[in-house]
Amino acid sequence: MYKSFSSSRESWGIMSCETHRNQPSCVLRVPIFKNLDMDTIEKLHEIIQKKTYKKGDFIFREGDRSETLFVVSDGMIKISKISEKGKEHSIRFLFPGDFFGQFALLQDKTHYANAEALEDVVVCTIHKNDFKEMLAKNPQITYQFLVELTNRLRETDEWVSNISLLEVERRLAKLLLIFYERSYPSNQILELPVAKKELAALIGTTPETVSRKLSHFESLGFIQLIGRTKIRMIDPNRLEKLV
Amino acid sequence: MYKSFSSSRESWGIMSCETHRNQPSCVLRVPIFKNLDMDTIEKLHEIIQKKTYKKGDFIFREGDRSETLFVVSDGMIKISKISEKGKEHSIRFLFPGDFFGQFALLQDKTHYANAEALEDVVVCTIHKNDFKEMLAKNPQITYQFLVELTNRLRETDEWVSNISLLEVERRLAKLLLIFYERSYPSNQILELPVAKKELAALIGTTPETVSRKLSHFESLGFIQLIGRTKIRMIDPNRLEKLV
Repeated sequence: MYKSFSSSRESWGIMSCETHRNQPSCVLRVPIFKNLDMDTIEKLHEIIQKKTYKKGDFIFREGDRSETLFVVSDGMIKISKISEKGKEHSIRFLFPGDFFGQFALLQDKTHYANAEALEDVVVCTIHKNDFKEMLAKNPQITYQFLVELTNRLRETDEWVSNISLLEVERRLAKLLLIFYERSYPSNQILELPVAKKELAALIGTTPETVSRKLSHFESLGFIQLIGRTKIRMIDPNRLEKLV
Repeated sequence: MYKSFSSSRESWGIMSCETHRNQPSCVLRVPIFKNLDMDTIEKLHEIIQKKTYKKGDFIFREGDRSETLFVVSDGMIKISKISEKGKEHSIRFLFPGDFFGQFALLQDKTHYANAEALEDVVVCTIHKNDFKEMLAKNPQITYQFLVELTNRLRETDEWVSNISLLEVERRLAKLLLIFYERSYPSNQILELPVAKKELAALIGTTPETVSRKLSHFESLGFIQLIGRTKIRMIDPNRLEKLV
């Protein structure tokens, strides 16, 4: 797994993203839609639908078809595959601003993985026909889409390499930073989106090692552990240096 | 690692790919350039440069910049990362028809991995400016490029999931089929592009297990082992069923 964090918040422009004519924040927050003229933004708002899902709901499952592109507006989503024996593998986590479902959309095929809401989420959808028309009329969006896909491929490649090449401590530090960077924590408090067991699986180690390494980070003053699922990120810069 | 095998040979059209005005076969063989009109094909031939590399040469290394998109014309290329301690991780293998270097090109950044010739290879290059002009003028190429990138991302996601979810035997069978499908073997003889140690690393197991599983496949009549690096693929269909 890795998560998509191709675009920093800064790149989403200086406008407030939360409200725009009471529309979901699936346009201004989304890298592929940045730097568009007002007419195109209007048009986008017309074709976007908003859907909400409860924690634990599946937006789609492997083998499903869907007719839309999905964009995360609020909350966190997990993309995963499950083996015949029920074992799960997390492919990536998606945060506000990330699109997903593009493979099934562009190839007219079924989804190759599951998309599950890790908390209550708001998702915006754009129908296939509208999206393809949008691409045809706006080379800028198409180009930006290309750029974001090359980004996501790089992130996937790098994450998989990290698992193979980095030591456990650095992998864990990297994962914490990714969650921190993308999940808009309040008061530096990061709420882990997955259980410690899954966190361990993500970086190819055991839950015991994760616990030990977290305690080590705490003893160094990088983080403070709060209960079982929360972490105060005291010094992300020093964590970054470790990576 | 996984390899890019998004497009079957069949999808490259019925025309002979090997010669076109003595130009390298980097246009007709390449999925992103399929179904183009003759004028665009002419133009492509004008802007494409051909380069040859010897086995073991690096086309680029992590941290390098380059001004071109690369397309494999002949031979096989390995994309990999190397840790500070010299440990290598193969990200993917590229075969004739595959493009690479798109991240550095589109993002104007350095390469995040190495590209190494696994045998004598011929590579076609298209300069950044020419390629961007080509995209701007041909929405069809841009769209096809999008499709191929979503394909490559799916393949990467699926390969990584396979490593996590499939049993070793099925991973090995899948890897053999990937090499077989893309490397144009003659007389059903597949020459392994990497040493057994690396093959084992690719599927997350030991060289001893690889040897044992290969012998098992041989005893089932799926393959015939010829020396240390060659395999006769007797019954790829039964191997496929195993996956």
